[in-house]
Amino acid sequence: MNAIADYRTYPLISPLLRVTLAPDLIEVTWADQRRSPFHHLWLRDNCPCPQCVYSVTREQVFEIADVPETLQAMSVEVDRDGALHVQWDDGHESRFDPGWLRAHAYDEASRAEQQARRVNKRHWVAGLELPVFEYDAVMEDPKALLDWLLAVRDIGLTQVRGVPTAPGSLSALAERISFIRQSNFGVLFNVQSRADADSNAYTAFNLPLHTDLPTRELQPGLQFLHCLVNDAEGGDSRFVDGFAIAQTLRQEDPDAYRLLCEIPVEFRNKDRRSDYRCLAPVIALDALGEVAEIRMANFLRGPLNLPPQWVLPYYRAYRRFIEMTREARFQFHQRLEAGQLWCFDNRRTLHARDAFDPASGARHFQGCYVDRDELLSRIWVLQR
Amino acid sequence: MNAIADYRTYPLISPLLRVTLAPDLIEVTWADQRRSPFHHLWLRDNCPCPQCVYSVTREQVFEIADVPETLQAMSVEVDRDGALHVQWDDGHESRFDPGWLRAHAYDEASRAEQQARRVNKRHWVAGLELPVFEYDAVMEDPKALLDWLLAVRDIGLTQVRGVPTAPGSLSALAERISFIRQSNFGVLFNVQSRADADSNAYTAFNLPLHTDLPTRELQPGLQFLHCLVNDAEGGDSRFVDGFAIAQTLRQEDPDAYRLLCEIPVEFRNKDRRSDYRCLAPVIALDALGEVAEIRMANFLRGPLNLPPQWVLPYYRAYRRFIEMTREARFQFHQRLEAGQLWCFDNRRTLHARDAFDPASGARHFQGCYVDRDELLSRIWVLQR
Repeated sequence: MNAIADYRTYPLISPLLRVTLAPDLIEVTWADQRRSPFHHLWLRDNCPCPQCVYSVTREQVFEIADVPETLQAMSVEVDRDGALHVQWDDGHESRFDPGWLRAHAYDEASRAEQQARRVNKRHWVAGLELPVFEYDAVMEDPKALLDWLLAVRDIGLTQVRGVPTAPGSLSALAERISFIRQSNFGVLFNVQSRADADSNAYTAFNLPLHTDLPTRELQPGLQFLHCLVNDAEGGDSRFVDGFAIAQTLRQEDPDAYRLLCEIPVEFRNKDRRSDYRCLAPVIALDALGEVAEIRMANFLRGPLNLPPQWVLPYYRAYRRFIEMTREARFQFHQRLEAGQLWCFDNRRTLHARDAFDPASGARHFQGCYVDRDELLSRIWVLQR
Repeated sequence: MNAIADYRTYPLISPLLRVTLAPDLIEVTWADQRRSPFHHLWLRDNCPCPQCVYSVTREQVFEIADVPETLQAMSVEVDRDGALHVQWDDGHESRFDPGWLRAHAYDEASRAEQQARRVNKRHWVAGLELPVFEYDAVMEDPKALLDWLLAVRDIGLTQVRGVPTAPGSLSALAERISFIRQSNFGVLFNVQSRADADSNAYTAFNLPLHTDLPTRELQPGLQFLHCLVNDAEGGDSRFVDGFAIAQTLRQEDPDAYRLLCEIPVEFRNKDRRSDYRCLAPVIALDALGEVAEIRMANFLRGPLNLPPQWVLPYYRAYRRFIEMTREARFQFHQRLEAGQLWCFDNRRTLHARDAFDPASGARHFQGCYVDRDELLSRIWVLQR
């Protein structure tokens, strides 16, 4: 039945009590008195039988356009196993597990319950109690791995300690989640001061608070920064929660917030072999109007191209955002030592580096990216 | 000056004739009589001097939040080289190349010209004159490479012929653009009928018209399908231009079009080691309301979860879209032979495969993905 098709299990919340047939839908009543409508087309679309879903791939082979829009259930009943049994007017039969059906019910009360289970991001400011994890534990223990990944997802900034300091060691840890996302900077990139730098990251300058690769349609989801050696003076790490800043801006200056959500700006990133450009707003909202993403790296932004009357209002909003990232109330500040790494949500948590003195000692970090899809997939699998 | 900072050149369209200073902005008049306002903050933000832009990385080190919002130009003039020279009230000086300045002007006429230069996608239907390219040419000749990539960008379906048929040969061609985007199916994936298929793609079933990986936040931009051997009966390739279908739907059934743009549905893709989910609409629009992306693979769609009153209207729209993909008027149909490959815009061009008989002969395709950012970057570099 359906419960198998997606590798999840659907406990029986409440048995099916009775079912009534109407022209467009059937309505089931559960033992706890909840009533859920299921349209005929919806039920036919979700038939889990082996003719409709190929059992090896667990993917649908039936398509809802294969039946007429007027398809009707001829009879419906709760069978002796408690499942919903439907006989269709074209001869097909479907049987639905009551746990699966309840989990996918779309009556108002069920949808409200589903909304309430949405993940809540926990915003933070300067006083963040940094979530710290041990390398050996996350490498060996699936429970420790899950705890770490949930902190990455919900808080957006974590540290892992006890990481080997041999170059390349980062890969094994990142691959506990999934494959690494490549970019024009490579698979693992070396963050060192270089004379031929193709990014300000590869200088000894301070780097202002920013997200990486805002020049790509999809900014990398997670960023890892692994410290192999840090004997140079300066170069401390700084972070702000871009979601917390956006939320504060929304309260303190709603006009500026709206401009940053609505007006796209271009980010550019070019060298001799590449030329990336992306036009997108600094703050992106999801379908529910919640902040979904921050996109900000001033050193990669192109010239504003707006109708003249919007230029000064936009600069006012943009400057306000940058000024907020500079405020002590939002900044978490810590020096990373050899054998430690940062893993953070690059689409939420802006990161910065103080200037350092390359003559005062060696400094070598390695970094890489893993996308948000891969993080969430790993979490779903670990939670099965 | 600015012209160097982004590896592009800015021809002198028209010399600077005169410049006048106002409280918030300066207005320049060009020799062709166009007038362009440039706000003080905008000019200061774009100062190309070596203190503001690091010459090695060509990235800005100055941030507009480093100066007060009230910063003023004390004097402006067109210098003897024809550049705009600005003296700021804090002592800084800026000099702007007139070609660069004209290219970035944001007066109404200049913005209209920039809009008019936007790329136009060329929609196609069943009678498409397939753009075909030769492997040797695109591997060796930058001009042939550019022609191919422009066809991929603007038409969204191309064929390359004369490709070696040794397994793995596809990589070198894809890497003419950039690195390959990895997925849970690997870097290169083998499209063959397998007993342990983890996708309907790896069966001998027909595959309905679809985009690949709609389960990811960013669907892969380009898809390559390279035929090593195709001796089996059946298995022909079919394509439709999803943008052409969306445009036709918009005209023929605007209510259905709007529902497909506005209502997100979940796509799911799971196996023993992964569990991807993405909630997004079938048709995505860009900031100007133009169709930017199609997301559709019926066999990966999850159960609809909508307020009950939207279920039947949504099914009506969704079924209409699928029915249109099945119409002969939209379908381009061709069998791929050994040594040929398809390269298409996976976020626009839906692809399908007829069922084939694995007992009738060998059939082995290899595929891979490259993202749209990489395609556009390569085009910009080739056009420098």
